[in-house]
Amino acid sequence: MPDTLEPQLKVSFRKSIAMGPGKASLLDSIEKNGSISAAARELGMSYRRAWILVDTMNQCFAAALVETLTGGTRGGGAQVTEFGKEVLLRYRAMERKATNSVRTEMSEFSEYMR
Amino acid sequence: MPDTLEPQLKVSFRKSIAMGPGKASLLDSIEKNGSISAAARELGMSYRRAWILVDTMNQCFAAALVETLTGGTRGGGAQVTEFGKEVLLRYRAMERKATNSVRTEMSEFSEYMR
Repeated sequence: MPDTLEPQLKVSFRKSIAMGPGKASLLDSIEKNGSISAAARELGMSYRRAWILVDTMNQCFAAALVETLTGGTRGGGAQVTEFGKEVLLRYRAMERKATNSVRTEMSEFSEYMR
Repeated sequence: MPDTLEPQLKVSFRKSIAMGPGKASLLDSIEKNGSISAAARELGMSYRRAWILVDTMNQCFAAALVETLTGGTRGGGAQVTEFGKEVLLRYRAMERKATNSVRTEMSEFSEYMR
C-alpha cells in the first residue's frame, strides 16, 4: 500500500510556482508562528529559502500574501494578510476536491503497488 | 493568468515517489524511443538519473514497468511492459479526473494572480 496518494496542486505562473504544497505549508506556519524565521525553523528550511518562497508568492499574486512588520518590541515578525488567508483557503479547498475526485481510482491504483 | 494550473499526482511509497509527472513522462518517452538513453536525451536528463527513476518505479510496483533488452543487433534497448502501460493509463486517467474536478475553482483562483 502506498504511504500517500494525494494530488499535489502546483499553480505555475511565468515559470515560477506561485502556490504549491511547500508554499501552502509555509503560509500555515507563518500564520501560526508570526515570523518567517520561526516558520523556516519549523519546516527545516533556511531563512533564505523561506524568504525566497514568500517573495515568489508576493510577486505572482495580485497583492501580498505575507507582510513583514518592522519595529516594535519584537523587532519585526511577519503575518499572513487577509488576502493570503483567502488564497490559502481556496487552495486547500481545491486540494480536498481534487483528492476526493480520485479516491476510488487511487484505491484501485494502490493494488498495483508492492 | 497562470501559465499552468494542473494538479500533479504524486504517488509516494516508502519515502520514494513511485509515480509522478516526471516518471510518467519518462515512461511515455521510453515507450516512444525504445531505449532509456534516448528517453533521457529527449527529456534532458542524464542516463544515470533516468535509470534511477526506472529502478525506483520497478521497486515500488508489484511488477516491472520497464524491462531492458540485452543482445540483438541493436545491442539492448528498453520497453514499457504491458503492466507499465496499464499503470500509465490509470495514472493519466486520474490526472485528467483530478484536473477536471477543480476546473471551475482553478479559473476563479486564477483571478487572484497578477
